[in-house]
Amino acid sequence: MSNASASHPFDQDTAVDKVTDGHYAATVTDRWSALTGHPNGGYLQALALRALGEGTAHPDPVSVATFYQRPGNPGPAEVHTEIAREGRRLATGEARVLQQGREVIRTMAHFGDLRNATGPEHRLAAAPELPEPAECLDPLAELSLDGLSIARQVEYRTAQPFGFMQGAPSGMPQAEFWMRLRGGREPDLLALAFLVDAAAPAVLELGEPPAPTVELTTHLRARPAPGWLACRVQTRHVSRGFHEEDFEIWDVTGTLVAQSRQLAMFP
Amino acid sequence: MSNASASHPFDQDTAVDKVTDGHYAATVTDRWSALTGHPNGGYLQALALRALGEGTAHPDPVSVATFYQRPGNPGPAEVHTEIAREGRRLATGEARVLQQGREVIRTMAHFGDLRNATGPEHRLAAAPELPEPAECLDPLAELSLDGLSIARQVEYRTAQPFGFMQGAPSGMPQAEFWMRLRGGREPDLLALAFLVDAAAPAVLELGEPPAPTVELTTHLRARPAPGWLACRVQTRHVSRGFHEEDFEIWDVTGTLVAQSRQLAMFP
Repeated sequence: MSNASASHPFDQDTAVDKVTDGHYAATVTDRWSALTGHPNGGYLQALALRALGEGTAHPDPVSVATFYQRPGNPGPAEVHTEIAREGRRLATGEARVLQQGREVIRTMAHFGDLRNATGPEHRLAAAPELPEPAECLDPLAELSLDGLSIARQVEYRTAQPFGFMQGAPSGMPQAEFWMRLRGGREPDLLALAFLVDAAAPAVLELGEPPAPTVELTTHLRARPAPGWLACRVQTRHVSRGFHEEDFEIWDVTGTLVAQSRQLAMFP
Repeated sequence: MSNASASHPFDQDTAVDKVTDGHYAATVTDRWSALTGHPNGGYLQALALRALGEGTAHPDPVSVATFYQRPGNPGPAEVHTEIAREGRRLATGEARVLQQGREVIRTMAHFGDLRNATGPEHRLAAAPELPEPAECLDPLAELSLDGLSIARQVEYRTAQPFGFMQGAPSGMPQAEFWMRLRGGREPDLLALAFLVDAAAPAVLELGEPPAPTVELTTHLRARPAPGWLACRVQTRHVSRGFHEEDFEIWDVTGTLVAQSRQLAMFP
C-alpha cells in the first residue's frame, strides 16, 4: 500500500504520510460525503487500514472492525497505529484516526495473505442474480448529486429503480445491485473496505432516515477480480434505535470477496 | 457488573479485581474449555467486557468486537482497559487480556443503555421454531464430557440429534436449538457475549474440524428475559482456510437479543 504516484481520488484521499513510526498524517477530503456533509465511514476506515497496513509485512486485511465515535470532517487528520502481534499467518493491530486531537474512529484488524491461503471449500450461498451491468439502469442518472460527493466517486447499476428514490419505499429493506469506483480504478481489498459502506442504507426502503454507523465489521474473503462488483444489502432487525445492515460483495467471477455487518443508531 | 457475592461459576470466573485504574487482575479457569484444553473465546471475551464495563457509567455492552491473537490458558491474567470516549448515548473503549505478559485477546466495545433506548421497530426475521425445551432432547445426554468442561456449564436442547454427533454430518452447516447456563443462572448481556461462542461449530455438519475463532463481533440488541434462549447458527462460506459463523440468540419472549458473526481459521 504505497502512497507513490496515486492518481485516483480513492488512492489520493487515503494517502498517509509517515511522521514517525506508528504516526501518520493524512487529509480527509470532501469527496466522500453523503448528504450529512460528513465523510463516509467506509472511507475513514480505508484511511485507517491503509496506515495500519504500512506497519505489517502481511499484505491483506482479512478482518476489520471499526468503532465510530464522532463524525469526521474534511481537513487534516492524524493516524496512530499499533501492531499488537506480528504472527506467521496473521498480524493484528489497530489504528486510531484523530481530528483536532479527538479520536474519530478506531479500527482493529487482522492482516494476512489471501493469495496463498488454502483450505476446504464449501460455498453454500449464491451471488446476487443480476442482469449484466450494461442491461441495468443507473439509479443516480436523474438525481441531483449536490451534497452527495460520494456519488461522484462510485457508480451503481440496478435491475429496477430503488423504491425510496421514487418516493415509494418498498417496505423491504434489501437490494441487489452492481457497484464500482468510477474512472476505471479496479477494486482491491482496500476499496472493498470502503465500498461495504458506500451504498444507500437499506432502511430507506422502510421509509426510515439514514442513521450513522456506530460499528462496522468486514471480513475480506478473497482479492477481487477486476470489474463490476455484485452487491447485496439487507437489514432485518430495527429495534430500540439500532439496526444492523448486512452487506456482501461478490466479484464478476462469482466469488464472495467481502461480507460486512454494521450497527447503525438513529439520531 | 459487581464482583461481590458472585456464586455462579460464570460470575466467579469472569470476576476482575482492580489493581489500579484501567488495570485488573483475573483468573482464567479450566471450566470453559472445549476439547482443545484452551478456554472458550466467548468466555475470554466476557472477562474482557466485564473489566471494561467497570470503567463506564453506561450499563450495557451493545456492540463488541474481539480479535483473538493467541490461545488462552487456565491461570492468571491481566486486563488493561481504556475508555476512549464517554459520550451521552454511547461509551467506547477497549480491553486487552494478557497472560504471562503476552496479549491473548483485544476487545473493543460500545456501551449504552438498552433499557431506555427507543426508536422505530421493524422486525423482519423470525425466531427459531423449536418445540418447547421439555419436548426436546439433550444432545449431550449420552456423550462423555471428558475434556469438554464448557458442557458442564451450558446446556442445550434440540428437536433432533445433531448429525455430526451421530457420525453422520448433515452437510448443512446450520442448526436451531435451545441453550442456557446451567444451575439457574439467568441470562444477561454479559452471558450472551459468552453464549454466542458456546455451541458446537456449524462446520462440524460439513465433516470439517472445529477451527479457532480469529474475530468475533456481537451486537447486543436487548436485555434478555429469564429462561431458555433460542439459538440459530449458520455458516455459508468456507474458503481459503477461513469461514464465518453467524449466530443469533432470541429470548423466550421472541425478542432477538444478540446477533454475532465470527471468522474462524482452520489450523
